[in-house]
Amino acid sequence: MTDTVNLSLAEATSLSLDILANTGLSKSQCDAVTDVIIRAQRDECHSHGLYRLLGCAHSINIGRVNKNAEPVVTDVAPSIVKVNADHGFSSLAYSRGIELALDKATVQGLSAMAINDCYHFSALWPEVEPLAERGFAAIALTPSHNWVAPAGGIRPVFGTNPFAFAWPRPKRQPFVFDFATSATARGEIELHRRHGKPIAPGLAIDLDGEPTTDPSEALKGAMLTFGGHKGSALSAMIELLAGPLIGDMLSIESKAHDNEAGAAPLHGELIIIFDPASFLGKALEQNMNRAELLFEAITGQNARLPSQRRYEARQKTEAEGLDIPRALYDDLIKFLPPPQYEQRTEKLSQR
Amino acid sequence: MTDTVNLSLAEATSLSLDILANTGLSKSQCDAVTDVIIRAQRDECHSHGLYRLLGCAHSINIGRVNKNAEPVVTDVAPSIVKVNADHGFSSLAYSRGIELALDKATVQGLSAMAINDCYHFSALWPEVEPLAERGFAAIALTPSHNWVAPAGGIRPVFGTNPFAFAWPRPKRQPFVFDFATSATARGEIELHRRHGKPIAPGLAIDLDGEPTTDPSEALKGAMLTFGGHKGSALSAMIELLAGPLIGDMLSIESKAHDNEAGAAPLHGELIIIFDPASFLGKALEQNMNRAELLFEAITGQNARLPSQRRYEARQKTEAEGLDIPRALYDDLIKFLPPPQYEQRTEKLSQR
Repeated sequence: MTDTVNLSLAEATSLSLDILANTGLSKSQCDAVTDVIIRAQRDECHSHGLYRLLGCAHSINIGRVNKNAEPVVTDVAPSIVKVNADHGFSSLAYSRGIELALDKATVQGLSAMAINDCYHFSALWPEVEPLAERGFAAIALTPSHNWVAPAGGIRPVFGTNPFAFAWPRPKRQPFVFDFATSATARGEIELHRRHGKPIAPGLAIDLDGEPTTDPSEALKGAMLTFGGHKGSALSAMIELLAGPLIGDMLSIESKAHDNEAGAAPLHGELIIIFDPASFLGKALEQNMNRAELLFEAITGQNARLPSQRRYEARQKTEAEGLDIPRALYDDLIKFLPPPQYEQRTEKLSQR
Repeated sequence: MTDTVNLSLAEATSLSLDILANTGLSKSQCDAVTDVIIRAQRDECHSHGLYRLLGCAHSINIGRVNKNAEPVVTDVAPSIVKVNADHGFSSLAYSRGIELALDKATVQGLSAMAINDCYHFSALWPEVEPLAERGFAAIALTPSHNWVAPAGGIRPVFGTNPFAFAWPRPKRQPFVFDFATSATARGEIELHRRHGKPIAPGLAIDLDGEPTTDPSEALKGAMLTFGGHKGSALSAMIELLAGPLIGDMLSIESKAHDNEAGAAPLHGELIIIFDPASFLGKALEQNMNRAELLFEAITGQNARLPSQRRYEARQKTEAEGLDIPRALYDDLIKFLPPPQYEQRTEKLSQR
C-alpha cells in the first residue's frame, strides 16, 4: 500500500459531495463548496483542497453553519451588489450574486459585490479567476480572525487578510495572484508545532512582542504581516474595505464571535470588478496586447508568474488524477455514513 | 547663518508659484502643482516637497511638459471618468476631473477616475486624503519607470509603483497610507551614492542579479520590490490597472519614452473611489464607528497609524513654518528671474 491515494477528479468530487451531504448541508451548498474544493485540489493547493472538508464538516457539525442557507441578493446601488449568505458558506452566496455583479460592471464600467454573514474557508483565486476568464479584471479581499500584529505593535489585530487579483489574457490562462498579508499561513505554524520544528525568523512574535521561532510561542503571541509596515498598511485596508465598508465584522470581531469554537471564520468579503471593454472601447485589443508586454518581460527572464505553478499542476492532475495522502483520505472517509465508508475502504484495499 | 531657511506656508507658496511661472507654465498648472508641493512640504515629506520643483522645472525646461496643457474630461461610462492631461502635470488633470468622479461615486456607489498622458511627480496621498476628508474611501495607483525587477528575475520591469489608500474617520484626520512597492525609493539609493555610503541589504541587485549594497551597482542593476513575491505581484497589478486598463503606458514604455531625458515620468494614474454611504445606507454611522475599533486596537498598543507622523509635522509647520536646507533654497531661487532672485537673496541675508 502506498502512502498516497490517487483519485480522479470525478471520484474526488463524489467523495466531497458525499461527505458534505452526510452533514446535512443543502444540495446547493454541497455543490458550491465542492466546486471550490475540487478546483483547489486540482491545482494542488493542498491547504484549500480536500483537507478543508475536515474544517467544513466541523463548522457544520458544531451547529455554526446554516445548513439550509438561502443567500439573498440585494441590488444596493447601480454599481453595488450585496449578497447576504444567510450564515452559510461564502461559495453559494458568491454564485448567487456574481452574474448581477458582472452585469453591473459591464454597464457601469466597474462594480463591487459584497458578501455578508458568510462562513469563509476557501482561497480567493477561485473567485476572481473565472471572472478574468470572461474578460474582467477583479480584486477580492476578506478579513479572517485576528492573529496578526500591526507593524510596531505586539498584540494581534489583523486577520491573515488575503488579497487576490485576476487579469484577463487573450488566448491564455489569466494572470492571477492570491496572497495572505500575514508573513506566513497560520496552518504552517501549526504544522511546525506538530512536527516539533522551529519556524523561520521574521514570521511571528511571542506574548512579550519578542521575535520567536518557537511555533508554540508564536501561536500564543502574534503573527507578523509580510513586508513590514507596508504589508501592515495593506492588511488594515483589507479590514476596512471588506469589513466596515460592507457592514461586516473586523477580524477582531469575527474571532470573538467564534469564541474558540474553531469554526470557519464568519465575516464579509469584497470583490471589485473592472470591465476593460468599458474603460477602453475601441482601444481594448491594443491594450490587452500591451499588458502582454509586461508578462513577456517577466517570463522572458525566466521569472515565474504567480499562477504558473497552479496551471502546471492542473494540467498534470487533469491527466493523472489527484494524489492525496492516505492519512487524509482515511480521515475524510470517517465523515461518511457507515455503508459508504465500508464500500470506499474495500474499494481502496483492492488497488 | 543657519543651515536651514524658515519659510511661512505663504512664503513657500509664493516661492513655488514664482519659480513655476518663470518657466512659462500656465497659471492653472502653477496653482495645481504648487498646491501638492506645499502640502507635501507642510507634512515634511521632503522628497515630494519644494525639492520637487527642481525636477518640475527641468521637465518643463527641456520641453517635455506641455506648459499650456488643458486637460479634457470625458464621461466614459456611468462609473468611469477619464481625464486626458494633455501632456501637462497630473495635478491639474486631477482637479479638473475629481468632482465628476465623486458625483459618480455618490450615485453609483463606486467610481474610477483615470488620468492619461500626465507627467507625474507627486506623492499619491494628496490625491486620496481630500476624498476621505469628504467621506469617501479611495485607492490611487500609478506606474513610473522600470527600475524594479520582478520576484525571481534580475532585469527591471516594474516602476516604483506606489499604492495609496484613504479612509474617512468621523471627527478625525483620515487614515491614509501611500507606499512604493519597491523596497526603497530610487532617490534614497542616489543619495547614498552621492554620499559614498552603502545601501541596506535586500533592496537591490547588480547587473548579474546578485544582491548588492553598492549604490552605483544597484542603480545599474535593478531595485527589488518590498515583501518578495507578494510585493512583486502587487506591483504587477498596479502596472496593469494604472496602465493597460486605462489605455496608458507600462513603466517599461514610460522609461523608453523618456529616453534618458530625466523628465518626470509620463504615464497614467487610476483612482478608485468608494462611497460608504451608498454601501451602508442607515448603517453608515454604526460602521464608521466599527472602523474606529480597528484604529483603537492599533494605537491602543502604541503602534502608529501610517499617516500619524505627517499629521504631527503638519501641526508643527502650520505653527512654526517650514524649515528647508539652505542649499535647497539656494538651488531653488536660481530658477527665479534676476530681479526676484536678488530681492529674495537680500531678504534672506537680513534674517
